[in-house]
Amino acid sequence: MHDDGDDGDEGGLLAAAARYERALREDDLDALDALFAPGPRTVRAEGGTALVGHDQISAFRRGRGGAPTRWLRRVHLRAVSADDAFTVSETERLDGGRGLQTQFWHRGPHGWRITAAHVSSAPPAGPARQPAGESAAASAAPADATTWRTPDSATALPAGAGTGPLTGIRVAVKDLVAVAGQRTGGGVPRWLEQARTEPVNAPALQALLDAGAGIAGIAQTDELAFSLLGVNAHHGVPPNPAAPGRVPGGSSSGCAAAVASGTADLGLGTDTAGSLRVPGSFSGLYAWRPTHGAVDAAGVLPLAPTFDTVGLLARDAGVLAVAAAALLTGPTHPPARPRALLRSRTLFQVAEPATALAVEAALRALAVQTGLPLRDVDDVGVDFTGEEVTAWTTAFRTVQAAEAWASHGAFITANPGALSPAVEARFRAGEGVGAETLNAARTTIEATRARLTAVLRGGWLCLPSTATPAPRIEATPDRFEAVRAGTLPLTTLASQTGVPALNLPWGRVGDLPVGLCVLAPHGQDRSLLALLAEVAPHPRTAARLP
Amino acid sequence: MHDDGDDGDEGGLLAAAARYERALREDDLDALDALFAPGPRTVRAEGGTALVGHDQISAFRRGRGGAPTRWLRRVHLRAVSADDAFTVSETERLDGGRGLQTQFWHRGPHGWRITAAHVSSAPPAGPARQPAGESAAASAAPADATTWRTPDSATALPAGAGTGPLTGIRVAVKDLVAVAGQRTGGGVPRWLEQARTEPVNAPALQALLDAGAGIAGIAQTDELAFSLLGVNAHHGVPPNPAAPGRVPGGSSSGCAAAVASGTADLGLGTDTAGSLRVPGSFSGLYAWRPTHGAVDAAGVLPLAPTFDTVGLLARDAGVLAVAAAALLTGPTHPPARPRALLRSRTLFQVAEPATALAVEAALRALAVQTGLPLRDVDDVGVDFTGEEVTAWTTAFRTVQAAEAWASHGAFITANPGALSPAVEARFRAGEGVGAETLNAARTTIEATRARLTAVLRGGWLCLPSTATPAPRIEATPDRFEAVRAGTLPLTTLASQTGVPALNLPWGRVGDLPVGLCVLAPHGQDRSLLALLAEVAPHPRTAARLP
Repeated sequence: MHDDGDDGDEGGLLAAAARYERALREDDLDALDALFAPGPRTVRAEGGTALVGHDQISAFRRGRGGAPTRWLRRVHLRAVSADDAFTVSETERLDGGRGLQTQFWHRGPHGWRITAAHVSSAPPAGPARQPAGESAAASAAPADATTWRTPDSATALPAGAGTGPLTGIRVAVKDLVAVAGQRTGGGVPRWLEQARTEPVNAPALQALLDAGAGIAGIAQTDELAFSLLGVNAHHGVPPNPAAPGRVPGGSSSGCAAAVASGTADLGLGTDTAGSLRVPGSFSGLYAWRPTHGAVDAAGVLPLAPTFDTVGLLARDAGVLAVAAAALLTGPTHPPARPRALLRSRTLFQVAEPATALAVEAALRALAVQTGLPLRDVDDVGVDFTGEEVTAWTTAFRTVQAAEAWASHGAFITANPGALSPAVEARFRAGEGVGAETLNAARTTIEATRARLTAVLRGGWLCLPSTATPAPRIEATPDRFEAVRAGTLPLTTLASQTGVPALNLPWGRVGDLPVGLCVLAPHGQDRSLLALLAEVAPHPRTAARLP
Repeated sequence: MHDDGDDGDEGGLLAAAARYERALREDDLDALDALFAPGPRTVRAEGGTALVGHDQISAFRRGRGGAPTRWLRRVHLRAVSADDAFTVSETERLDGGRGLQTQFWHRGPHGWRITAAHVSSAPPAGPARQPAGESAAASAAPADATTWRTPDSATALPAGAGTGPLTGIRVAVKDLVAVAGQRTGGGVPRWLEQARTEPVNAPALQALLDAGAGIAGIAQTDELAFSLLGVNAHHGVPPNPAAPGRVPGGSSSGCAAAVASGTADLGLGTDTAGSLRVPGSFSGLYAWRPTHGAVDAAGVLPLAPTFDTVGLLARDAGVLAVAAAALLTGPTHPPARPRALLRSRTLFQVAEPATALAVEAALRALAVQTGLPLRDVDDVGVDFTGEEVTAWTTAFRTVQAAEAWASHGAFITANPGALSPAVEARFRAGEGVGAETLNAARTTIEATRARLTAVLRGGWLCLPSTATPAPRIEATPDRFEAVRAGTLPLTTLASQTGVPALNLPWGRVGDLPVGLCVLAPHGQDRSLLALLAEVAPHPRTAARLP
């Protein structure tokens, strides 16, 4: 038996699977018939019954009037020979219900065909998922102090426009973003004490309010956003409903907890080194880091301005897409579609093996649903080397620390003990960075940008959003540091090149979510969101997509 | 890809599957772990979730505290290579709910192991299956005249003992069996007019009543039992709830319709050329034709006494087994277990291809659940030839017609037009059979008995109960005759050799039931029923099995 994961697309199998998915969506009975092997032994099993024989299966399809819409989330694939393979696909329905689709494929003179299939489904797990914005009490921020910062005056939180595409959407605003009439706390009590009351909303927040959204509350953040885990020494660890007992990911940790638990629909946060993508991966949420500069970062506490972005977290892809459209103020071009989805073996090997396998399964689901070819970077150019990855990670950390110190060194110096020792140490690492070191790092970053730009000509790059699932809350500081250090080589590629990145929360290591990250070329945010709409629409908002 | 059905047991795969089933029943976690391939890529999918990696799967099993009991009914198998194969198994739970189990197997240095599995289940189809004997109105025979003959006095139907292992079981008594106080109609109105009122119950019926059963009513039969389809020119065609629009099979047609629809739990009928096994196959019921002479046939209208037997139909195997124990009055020996299950390619080729495939799937289910080796007759001896099959069919029909004429020729001669022309023609075929022809036929039958006895030393013979599923009610007379002629080569093997036969109603051609027939050596009825108990217990009666 061949390993899976060794080929981009096992001899065109994923392309055949994509034709099958398209035919199923369109209820194209002739195409479905053609994709099932002819003859009396082809099997299709569902519920408690196996239909045997192509004729039986065809008659069943002609009688059912189309299949319920469902979306692939993970495709596990094993090649048995050059001409035999099977897939076990996990699917999700619009109502949150889940399903499974096992298919055995054989390649004969007429290409890949299904010789046996087994389909099953399960109702939505646990309590029914709350549709976005449809709860009774939309704007009362809950009391959980690990997730929410107590506002200076809850009754004075700015209101939304009341109408628009985001009407009813409740936003958790990361406590780095200016809210009119409130101070900004930055996840540090001493910072909050000294903060002024903001006179106006940050433009990004204002854009969401103008589109009809309301503020659910001010969400906690890791200290001055300089962490990826969601652990804050002052207010504790927000919960991770998708992985109980584990950290939610940070630094947009309160946003993630609020959105994952359903007390908000949208998180407005920041991503410098992964602070939206990591909580997206750990907490099972869609996350969007825009092209650097594409969303106005005014009114948002900086960390490392060369890398800082303002972006979003959401449970539902449709909500994310509509909100992103409200934030993108640049000129609109028709969305472009990538030539392929690219997989870098080097970057998958950065992740722990189980995470890499899980993200590969999600990547196959993306390829099959979009019909885009799945290729290895090596097939269209030269894959990144381990040395490159090490170099870009080091370069990023150098510049990040230097800029972070430039942003907040004065505060840290003036307020000893305001930060926890671990976070202060990260800032202090940037205190003594010399000009030569910094220039060398910036040169490496420039090279990485050029390198990635060349790669992205062949397709959009897909990689694990994090190297692991969320670690346990009680993990040791060493484990936390290892998780962070393991993930930075993955997240900082988009951060330092400025390209847009999307976290698709589809991977599963056991029950634990891990995200697939898709990087598009610079400025292609709308194209990236259009691809998202292909594979994860939401009924409430699908009609409003730009 | 290899065909399935070409090997008895694809290189030991069914034996491995049997070990898996046993380990599952016993919740033998170590054995289950050993039967799943080690490593991070092994997949087990159920509900909406795929567990990936042997560790995850093992942990899941250790946490669940055993799997719900379910029984395999059909195992579809495809060999992909000498070392790769998959099975799609259809299962049934005790509550009548159904399930599916797809497994991909790979043979490595440590034997066959599962590399991926997908399990799903469905609730019982349609209205919940009525447990035997637990309806509110147990003994009121319904009015459907195609199923039930109006008794001479419904209130005077004999009562059961009131206690015993069959308490609450409602028996449909074929209108060939003497019921005290009633005439016997034989499916022919003219016969009924001339019949005497029976003074006592037939011993077989009495044995059931003594065991606690009650009479649900007198069930219709094909004319003088000389048909296999369930079509009667006088009272019409009883319904087939398992295959609406199709004949129920006969001649025990009323019993089959009553039991399949739930208005009776047990059918007491007769089988000369297949009159229990054919309705069992067409209507999806367990059917037992005993060893010739093992159940007292006194008080039952004869057709061809050399072949006539009195036996049973039931929905639930446990009910069948308990009732059969009440009928078997001979000496009790410890049940023997067969050395193997034998498949005759010749006999499977007698059936239509889709029926043969369906019965093979049922046979694999029997082999996997019992752990008995599945062998071709060729592996332990020499398979029957097509010439042998033709010869035994002709010989049987010759003797049957001659004996039937001897039984009823006088009535037919005295009552012209009493029978429909087609049935009368069958009787008339026996009118002119000469002694030489008859002797030659009996010699052929003796040879067939010797031949089968030799085959059964290697194991129990498994074959399709019928050559097709039930034909449509509106089929042409030619089609009906073709169905009958196609099935007689299969059914008459047990009929002329006197061995016991069991119909397992597990095969499916689309939605249509077809039966697997198992033949045991002469006198081994209790062994045959013990094997049935291994694979199809019923909760109500499992505790009462002999």
